[in-house]
Amino acid sequence: MIERGAVAVIFTSTRSSADEPGYAAMAARMESLASEHDGFISVHSVRDPQARTGITVSYWRDDASARSWKLVQEHLLAQDLGRTTWYADYSVVVASVIRAYGSDPSPADSGTQPQ
Amino acid sequence: MIERGAVAVIFTSTRSSADEPGYAAMAARMESLASEHDGFISVHSVRDPQARTGITVSYWRDDASARSWKLVQEHLLAQDLGRTTWYADYSVVVASVIRAYGSDPSPADSGTQPQ
Repeated sequence: MIERGAVAVIFTSTRSSADEPGYAAMAARMESLASEHDGFISVHSVRDPQARTGITVSYWRDDASARSWKLVQEHLLAQDLGRTTWYADYSVVVASVIRAYGSDPSPADSGTQPQ
Repeated sequence: MIERGAVAVIFTSTRSSADEPGYAAMAARMESLASEHDGFISVHSVRDPQARTGITVSYWRDDASARSWKLVQEHLLAQDLGRTTWYADYSVVVASVIRAYGSDPSPADSGTQPQ
């Protein structure tokens, strides 16, 4: 379970086209590269192929590691391609975790009480 | 654009079954009910029918309004059904927005600089 003080990066996007060549490979490569970056905790990504919308949430130890990942050279190139080619629309929200809970509570649960 | 200090509720889930009766109607009803609740800003939901996974992110004016929405009677019933019937697995992360940016910047953009 994600702990209080971790940083969530919420990436919401709408693709320009459902089958732009290279997109799936780039997305997989970015997840792999992110997961090796210092401070990475986890990533969850869901895409609706029909609606062309997607949400990816990555969790980071702190804001410094989230910012540092944003500046990785290969990731900067992907961001450029995203802006110019892949996404009709996107937004990024960066947020500091207050609490977390779920169907599989563990001693690592954060927060003092469920929301 | 979401402003600093708003609260994001990130709901990640895996359905037990892809076509449980009543699920789509409940999900639509909850989005509608939430949108009328005091402090509601917006909601974004993506579900992959094949993988049965979904992410819903709702944004709230503050933590008090997010907590208050959680306690609405009809929403409590839906949460019970979610736990007992609809979801094989779920997690909720509540986080305080630090900054936000995207493809359609507006004067309401929050934060002092892009991440």
